[in-house]
Amino acid sequence: MMDIDYLRIIDLSGIAAFAVSGAVAAMRKRLDLFGIFIIAFVTAMGGGTLRDLLINQAPPVWMYDLWYGLTVGVSTTCVLFFTRYIDNFKKPLLFFDSVGLGLFTILGIEKGIALDLHPVICVTLGTVTACFGGVIRDISLRTIPVIFHQEIYASACITGGVVYFILLYSGAGETWINILSIFSVFLMRMLAVIFKLRLPNPYKFSQ
Amino acid sequence: MMDIDYLRIIDLSGIAAFAVSGAVAAMRKRLDLFGIFIIAFVTAMGGGTLRDLLINQAPPVWMYDLWYGLTVGVSTTCVLFFTRYIDNFKKPLLFFDSVGLGLFTILGIEKGIALDLHPVICVTLGTVTACFGGVIRDISLRTIPVIFHQEIYASACITGGVVYFILLYSGAGETWINILSIFSVFLMRMLAVIFKLRLPNPYKFSQ
Amino acid sequence: MMDIDYLRIIDLSGIAAFAVSGAVAAMRKRLDLFGIFIIAFVTAMGGGTLRDLLINQAPPVWMYDLWYGLTVGVSTTCVLFFTRYIDNFKKPLLFFDSVGLGLFTILGIEKGIALDLHPVICVTLGTVTACFGGVIRDISLRTIPVIFHQEIYASACITGGVVYFILLYSGAGETWINILSIFSVFLMRMLAVIFKLRLPNPYKFSQ
Repeated sequence: MMDIDYLRIIDLSGIAAFAVSGAVAAMRKRLDLFGIFIIAFVTAMGGGTLRDLLINQAPPVWMYDLWYGLTVGVSTTCVLFFTRYIDNFKKPLLFFDSVGLGLFTILGIEKGIALDLHPVICVTLGTVTACFGGVIRDISLRTIPVIFHQEIYASACITGGVVYFILLYSGAGETWINILSIFSVFLMRMLAVIFKLRLPNPYKFSQ
Repeated sequence: MMDIDYLRIIDLSGIAAFAVSGAVAAMRKRLDLFGIFIIAFVTAMGGGTLRDLLINQAPPVWMYDLWYGLTVGVSTTCVLFFTRYIDNFKKPLLFFDSVGLGLFTILGIEKGIALDLHPVICVTLGTVTACFGGVIRDISLRTIPVIFHQEIYASACITGGVVYFILLYSGAGETWINILSIFSVFLMRMLAVIFKLRLPNPYKFSQ
Repeated sequence: MMDIDYLRIIDLSGIAAFAVSGAVAAMRKRLDLFGIFIIAFVTAMGGGTLRDLLINQAPPVWMYDLWYGLTVGVSTTCVLFFTRYIDNFKKPLLFFDSVGLGLFTILGIEKGIALDLHPVICVTLGTVTACFGGVIRDISLRTIPVIFHQEIYASACITGGVVYFILLYSGAGETWINILSIFSVFLMRMLAVIFKLRLPNPYKFSQ
């Protein structure tokens, strides 16, 4: 019987959604073809690559598994051909982006656990995995990273990480831990976008 | 008898001073809470992390020793609550910043010596350790790094590195080498701030 | 009989040309002496260093072989003293820059082959080696990297990489593979500069 690898599908769908966000941002800055593909790739793979460098597990997985590069290439090509219609895909893109955000957070956390790191550091690694592709994208495009001042993004990852460890310590099964923590990242990100939530403004305390 | 670990105290005070400089810079750019903490962390830990990546000694120390992250967290929280009064702390902050600069330079140099690298490369590693957190901070905040065009900062580290190797080759004891080279970084940084010293302007030669 | 190490000469000439491009860009942004040297160094060594980090072969070669740092230092000093005349050297600089681009591409590809990576990844590593020093230079100087939107640069490296693998699989000798693939990078870069070629504009398809 064919066994469908759901995790793989979620993983590559998340990569594709991240690549699309990179390609769209690059086109807004009028980069050329090469620039668009590079920014798409960096947005999709940058977080995981930085994590692997930090925990000394380079070379990163995309050097051995060409499906990652292929996914980025195909989804960026789609953006190039269907730019005009991209607004129609906002909702599915947000869906896959948010699921990807959850999955990448959990993948980062599990890498940290495998190295016996403290839960706080594991959650940090999960957040780096999920968010730093976007940070590198924004720095390359000469904008202050959006996750630093505009969007609830990292907070969703941190919440998911906390859920992960609460479930882990309360003895939940692996499948439930994964599903529920990915879902809590997803939910928080969706709620943040729908209700335009932001982090509390720290500037009312000052001046 | 209780033995006070002076090195540890200097180390964490330097980290705190670096984190404060990051938090203040992030607030000037109106980042949100998450952005402020991240920039504070990157300013404090970025130089050492980059050094560890370059000499293949990842994962960096902050992944095993949570005191670093805690120090960054507490000092950034203080900045958030006492922004109004931060100007009153300019002098102690400059003091700890300069002592930290000296200590981090020497820590970087000693990592290089342990790997049998050439003195020039050791001093480079010391300077990277002490200065590149600030470079990453500035690049993330979309400013040209101040140490590239405004302040005597790296030059103080390089001077301290030269003092280190002169003392080492002249057979001085370890304690004296450390104290004197940290002090020379400290002194040069303080003199530079007090007398507003800058590197010679290379542009009078041109055009 | 004296045996001249041609590869070494090409390597260091390429490094020098890259350093000059970094120093000139830094001076345009009015950086101070330290900033100019750092940007020159990062432009020249950044691509190879990033490649070594990605394939887990840090520390990079410039930590063991001081000729690299020395070459950067001497060529940057020349830029500082002869800024007025630098336009007279445009042609030799372009020549060495293009030869260096070819050589660095091939060096990156060979590192990938030694690790048994897929040809696509090897060409990626070659392109990273040759181009990412310039990317780091531009990001540090707060400009959107030129190779992302203006110049045929990476495309020349990718072309050279394709030539490399076509020759390799058709059983050509090592010397011919190297010479012809370096030459094809060189040729494409020169043609691009002379005829002001750019990548096709993807924006006519959209809006």
